[in-house]
Amino acid sequence: MGSYKNGVVGDQSGTSNGDAGGAAVDKGVDFANYFCTYAFLYHQKEMLSDRVRMDAYYNAVFKNTHHFHGKAVLDVGAGSGILAIWSAQAGARKVYAVEATSMAEHARAVVKANNLQDVVEVIEGSMEDVVLPEKVDVIISEWMGYFLLRESMFDSVICARDRWLKPTGVMYPSHATMWVAPIRTGLGDQKSNDYESSMDHWERFADETKNYYGVDMSVLTKPFSQEQKKYYLQTSLWNNLHPHQVIGTAASIKEIDCLTASVTDILEVKSNFSSTVTLQNTRLCGYGGWFDVQFRGRKEDPAQEEVELTTAPSVNDGTHWGQQVFLLNPPARITEGDQLNGSFSMKRSKENHRLMEAEFSCEIRQQSGELVPRFTKDIS
Amino acid sequence: MGSYKNGVVGDQSGTSNGDAGGAAVDKGVDFANYFCTYAFLYHQKEMLSDRVRMDAYYNAVFKNTHHFHGKAVLDVGAGSGILAIWSAQAGARKVYAVEATSMAEHARAVVKANNLQDVVEVIEGSMEDVVLPEKVDVIISEWMGYFLLRESMFDSVICARDRWLKPTGVMYPSHATMWVAPIRTGLGDQKSNDYESSMDHWERFADETKNYYGVDMSVLTKPFSQEQKKYYLQTSLWNNLHPHQVIGTAASIKEIDCLTASVTDILEVKSNFSSTVTLQNTRLCGYGGWFDVQFRGRKEDPAQEEVELTTAPSVNDGTHWGQQVFLLNPPARITEGDQLNGSFSMKRSKENHRLMEAEFSCEIRQQSGELVPRFTKDIS
Repeated sequence: MGSYKNGVVGDQSGTSNGDAGGAAVDKGVDFANYFCTYAFLYHQKEMLSDRVRMDAYYNAVFKNTHHFHGKAVLDVGAGSGILAIWSAQAGARKVYAVEATSMAEHARAVVKANNLQDVVEVIEGSMEDVVLPEKVDVIISEWMGYFLLRESMFDSVICARDRWLKPTGVMYPSHATMWVAPIRTGLGDQKSNDYESSMDHWERFADETKNYYGVDMSVLTKPFSQEQKKYYLQTSLWNNLHPHQVIGTAASIKEIDCLTASVTDILEVKSNFSSTVTLQNTRLCGYGGWFDVQFRGRKEDPAQEEVELTTAPSVNDGTHWGQQVFLLNPPARITEGDQLNGSFSMKRSKENHRLMEAEFSCEIRQQSGELVPRFTKDIS
Repeated sequence: MGSYKNGVVGDQSGTSNGDAGGAAVDKGVDFANYFCTYAFLYHQKEMLSDRVRMDAYYNAVFKNTHHFHGKAVLDVGAGSGILAIWSAQAGARKVYAVEATSMAEHARAVVKANNLQDVVEVIEGSMEDVVLPEKVDVIISEWMGYFLLRESMFDSVICARDRWLKPTGVMYPSHATMWVAPIRTGLGDQKSNDYESSMDHWERFADETKNYYGVDMSVLTKPFSQEQKKYYLQTSLWNNLHPHQVIGTAASIKEIDCLTASVTDILEVKSNFSSTVTLQNTRLCGYGGWFDVQFRGRKEDPAQEEVELTTAPSVNDGTHWGQQVFLLNPPARITEGDQLNGSFSMKRSKENHRLMEAEFSCEIRQQSGELVPRFTKDIS
């Protein structure tokens, strides 16, 4: 039989021997599921071409050279080496650029081509295994996945911080926040249609298989329907939302202090939230999720100029992260002034610690005071 | 950084701890790279919807019930159980349906729904580990990957045969042949354009990164170009060829007797071949590869009616396997009567034993006697 993998964000393909609680993950499996993509220059280029991302880190470093000048820096997940190079150009005495994949060879070449081999040392290996000759003043890293925590790379940053950051050290970025807001979108209708289409196709297939090939497959209709429902309607989507699609106030559901967060803190995101609808006579089609990070330094050693990188819906300043869309099905009619009270719960998939599973619930309190009953959704 | 996998046939993503010579493959990695797709009903349905495939196996079984009546049968890689069920309906005394993924549960349900649970025993496990209570008279399996050997599932069939087939036993299918033929196609131009486009984009990116962000990435232009070339021009493609695209006689490059083939026999496909051009004034754009399998029984116990399943280019009888296209770049001008003498060599990728790497070389002997020099291509 011919076989191929669908490249779908949030798909459940792949497995790991580790559990969501942080037990050892098989390295071969982790490579097949996660690391391998980062070994490709094409993928690095995609990230390096994200102007908003690049501008934010560039400004964070060069408007705060006091944090770098004469200091020791660690770049976690260095990729092609850009952050390490900027740190050196900002005056760092020494930069350790740790990269788990063979991309490290390319980083080494770029460092040399920019004449910084005396300052930047590229180390190929995983952050959990690497041994540095000294502790560092700054840890800089671009670790954020879709909706911040997908890919769970922050674990490696925490590990680096606990082992290698001086007590006076600074994190770049220093803080991260996750946001959700109610949205309207055509995606729900689209996915509903795709699901219905798929079920029609199944019915025809089951008929044919019975009439033509003498095998009754109708016992699989229910599991097939569940599998397809999960795929089309219960898998969060990557999308580039327009600000006009945000129909209510955004609410923060997670705040991370990168200096103090532990792996336990980020294993689960669990929060109630409230949102006020800002558009008249509209449909609640789902929720959009995004994040921002800030470069504030630390209280005792703050940034001279604070920089923020946000991935909120934007006309001109979109990023490759887009937003994550959690569809609600069917949509609900709402209007300006309605209060949305919800709870959001997200944790790591047992089958693949790099992926997440989420649960949403929401009640609508209309201005009249009337309450539309709570509904709950499981989403991966 | 956001990350996603491209769903490309022949892509190199993933790795295994095993080497191409057949050493142990890490099971977790093998699941992440290969088995996981087969656990989805959607994927099973795609294969079950392939009418040519279904007709061939259906006819092979029901036109040769003498091979099944009162016999013990083993279905290797049973999937949803269809072949096992047909074997039972054809009169088998006992059918063992072995399936490595959780699809086995669905197979069990289908068997029960068709009232065959007394005959068909579904066993969830890998063929290499499973223990059967008896040897069998027939091994039936649909193991063929793109261009026959991709996915290397035949290893499991050989293992089953060597352990569980009686000395008098029969293989379904009994034989397999791999074919190549010269083709014309627009894909080469398309991929060339995509490659050029990608390089243009890279040049602009490298300029911007230098001028705007102060980092010279030009040292990566060459490796990027190699990576992109490999991706666009040196990766075999899945395609559904029209017979009109075949511009010369097909040549067989591998013949397999399923009763006697060993894993060593199929580790490598290495063959010279000759093809005569059948179209006037055309372009040799590459080679198309496909396979067929036959159900002939065995010499001492032949099929009453031989059935063949072919995946050759066809207007009406295409299959989900399509054909594999190996592009030649640039194309060569050829005409009717020209002789193409080539050699083809294909073996398993070291990084992932489920994928293949191929090497092609070809010389064109024109009717005038003039010889166009040999050119060689490495393709994955």
